[in-house]
Amino acid sequence: MTFSALTLDELTAQRDRARRDYDALVQRGLSLDLTRGKPSARQLDLASAMLTLPGGHTAADGTDCRNYGGGQGLAELRAIFSGLLQVPAAQLLAANNSSLSLMHDTIVHALLSGLPGVGRRWVDEPRVAFLCPVPGYDRHFALAERFGIELIPVPMNDEGPDMDVVEGLVREDAQVKGIWCVPKYSNPNGVSYSDETVRRLAAMPTAAPDFRIFWDNAYAVHHLTETPVEIADILALCAESGNPDRAFVFGSTSKITFAGGGVAFFGSSPANVSWLLGHTGKRTIGPDKINHLRHVEFLRDEAGVLEHMRRHRELIQPKFEAVDLILTKELGGTGLATWSKPLGGYFISLDVLEGSARQVVSRAAEAGIALTPAGATHPYGDDPADSTIRIAPTYPELPEVELAIGGLATCVRLVGTERLLERA
Amino acid sequence: MTFSALTLDELTAQRDRARRDYDALVQRGLSLDLTRGKPSARQLDLASAMLTLPGGHTAADGTDCRNYGGGQGLAELRAIFSGLLQVPAAQLLAANNSSLSLMHDTIVHALLSGLPGVGRRWVDEPRVAFLCPVPGYDRHFALAERFGIELIPVPMNDEGPDMDVVEGLVREDAQVKGIWCVPKYSNPNGVSYSDETVRRLAAMPTAAPDFRIFWDNAYAVHHLTETPVEIADILALCAESGNPDRAFVFGSTSKITFAGGGVAFFGSSPANVSWLLGHTGKRTIGPDKINHLRHVEFLRDEAGVLEHMRRHRELIQPKFEAVDLILTKELGGTGLATWSKPLGGYFISLDVLEGSARQVVSRAAEAGIALTPAGATHPYGDDPADSTIRIAPTYPELPEVELAIGGLATCVRLVGTERLLERA
Repeated sequence: MTFSALTLDELTAQRDRARRDYDALVQRGLSLDLTRGKPSARQLDLASAMLTLPGGHTAADGTDCRNYGGGQGLAELRAIFSGLLQVPAAQLLAANNSSLSLMHDTIVHALLSGLPGVGRRWVDEPRVAFLCPVPGYDRHFALAERFGIELIPVPMNDEGPDMDVVEGLVREDAQVKGIWCVPKYSNPNGVSYSDETVRRLAAMPTAAPDFRIFWDNAYAVHHLTETPVEIADILALCAESGNPDRAFVFGSTSKITFAGGGVAFFGSSPANVSWLLGHTGKRTIGPDKINHLRHVEFLRDEAGVLEHMRRHRELIQPKFEAVDLILTKELGGTGLATWSKPLGGYFISLDVLEGSARQVVSRAAEAGIALTPAGATHPYGDDPADSTIRIAPTYPELPEVELAIGGLATCVRLVGTERLLERA
Repeated sequence: MTFSALTLDELTAQRDRARRDYDALVQRGLSLDLTRGKPSARQLDLASAMLTLPGGHTAADGTDCRNYGGGQGLAELRAIFSGLLQVPAAQLLAANNSSLSLMHDTIVHALLSGLPGVGRRWVDEPRVAFLCPVPGYDRHFALAERFGIELIPVPMNDEGPDMDVVEGLVREDAQVKGIWCVPKYSNPNGVSYSDETVRRLAAMPTAAPDFRIFWDNAYAVHHLTETPVEIADILALCAESGNPDRAFVFGSTSKITFAGGGVAFFGSSPANVSWLLGHTGKRTIGPDKINHLRHVEFLRDEAGVLEHMRRHRELIQPKFEAVDLILTKELGGTGLATWSKPLGGYFISLDVLEGSARQVVSRAAEAGIALTPAGATHPYGDDPADSTIRIAPTYPELPEVELAIGGLATCVRLVGTERLLERA
């Protein structure tokens, strides 16, 4: 039953039970880490064969991958990911590891050179602001903040960002130049954007002529169920709506092959791709094509990627299931927390009583359970409700996930009952 | 004998002979490329073993190289290159391929965030200028030009840049924020900086508090003789001179292992390294450590690098020797050209009669011999004397180098005799 409906005595008893459980938890001296969305060693083992690839060095078109050149990346690698990322291969760019780097660099070039067809550089604007659907990805926020870009939070609902709010902001404020989007299995709450949301993002009038959607499709193929979520094709919808240059699509193999040794992708309109290639051509004499070839030999084709992701799912789906089972058992019906049940991606979003997320994270840390700092899911690390906690269950092995989530549930019960008693 | 001392008849006879040779050259329908400083396939073959490395995935400190993290790069890789690049390992950063990228990014961060201890961002300066010793590396110039940085040419002599000129410019002009240096086996004329030049660079007073030396030690271990050139330790000299943060050191394995799949390095003072790491940490969750491990397994240690470079030398030294032999045979004593005799690096600088380099390059192109555009060795592609041509002999195999240089010498004779006849 909902704890807020308990009598004072019942609530006190629950609090005392939680205290005993918490003390016992601390006594165990755990050291568990649920902070970051990292693949586990067993997931990385799935790509072990890559450690002795590619063996050869010649691309399909005869290019010697060992030498300089080929700024757009290997054509055969781009062909594999074209459909998965919903970007025509000719408009897809394959780079070194880290899609975050590509996001960084597109912002740098917009700041220092301006975007195609727009005379003014962002650095010459009085102010540049990005919309940040919340909860969202802390590294997106940190990246924009590092360049002095103002972060404007926008609430998420279960179809994506609240489009009424988004449309209002971009229509009225010409300094709003971008929006961060993780459109599929969103970090951290697992929401996938509805077709209507994508359509409205593509079509909405914007006061800024150089407004860009930063479409971080980080979890394009990271399904947790047998029925993959499909999202609408942002580039096609932008083109159809007369805004062909609006979206920058990003993706990577960081959570497919090796998190530290993957390949990142950028896809957009022909004008945007030429723009980025032009600037990238001054920065480097080409990406690591050997790593591209390695990925081609290992993944082979689109079906190969999907089959490989099925093996990932076998390893991580039980962890997500365990989190849900334990939270349901420990907190279900108490009203002390709600949590997401994602169909893909890397995270679970746990919402606790308003004003108590920081305290829960702090209690968990004291018990040896490291969580992403409360607030990290919001711009400037400031969650006004202080209620959202991001859970990253992939990295620890299953028994550790179970231990950690059990412990976390105890912290939620303790902080929650204390809070209710304060209010009583 | 010097052609300028020939009688009109003798000169005409030489011109006619050159014309016949040139016509015969064009008839051959060659297709040869001396444009870029790329390793040949046989050089890349020296590192073939890397195509099936690393095999394992664990760094010396237990780090799983497959996963995220480790922004400074593998310690054991940094240890291998520390001495070779004259940077303490703790102050060395190992990144992805392309040192050019690191140069780009340091400029970006100086533009958008300012340098350590300096309040003002370069982008807020009325003007930012870099000194460019000429002849120099076209990609350095293009990189700075792309950001609107003014390029000021400074003459090179056989000890490096003319330090009287450099000292005068940096002392008087606070907008001079940087200087491009390739201190060893300089691109393209092979000059290595004397100890005195390095000492003066480190010690000179500069009007700009945020002046930086971009020390591109691209050819640190790329010797063409048995007696490697040693240059003075720029970081140590800067520190001793009370300018600890003055130098950014760059290097890479692009011309050691794979040009397209190497590792790049940045080294500097602790303050500069922290500054770059801080900004890089927003851009990426770490470099490709698998490639770092691959390099460690293949190169093993400093001696392994030097032994590997000895094998490169066996392949490319005969090409440099052939260039010198052919140019000496065809042009020696004519006064139509002079050329560098580098002790290392990747280039030979050929100086032809003033005002004729473009025409020589153009004639060569018509005969199927592609050369780097005349002027590329100077800022804005503008060589005021129109006399310097960069020769890159490493990529073609030896018989092709011989053909190409023989053809080039014919072009020099043709254009040179025509020019002397015009003046006669």
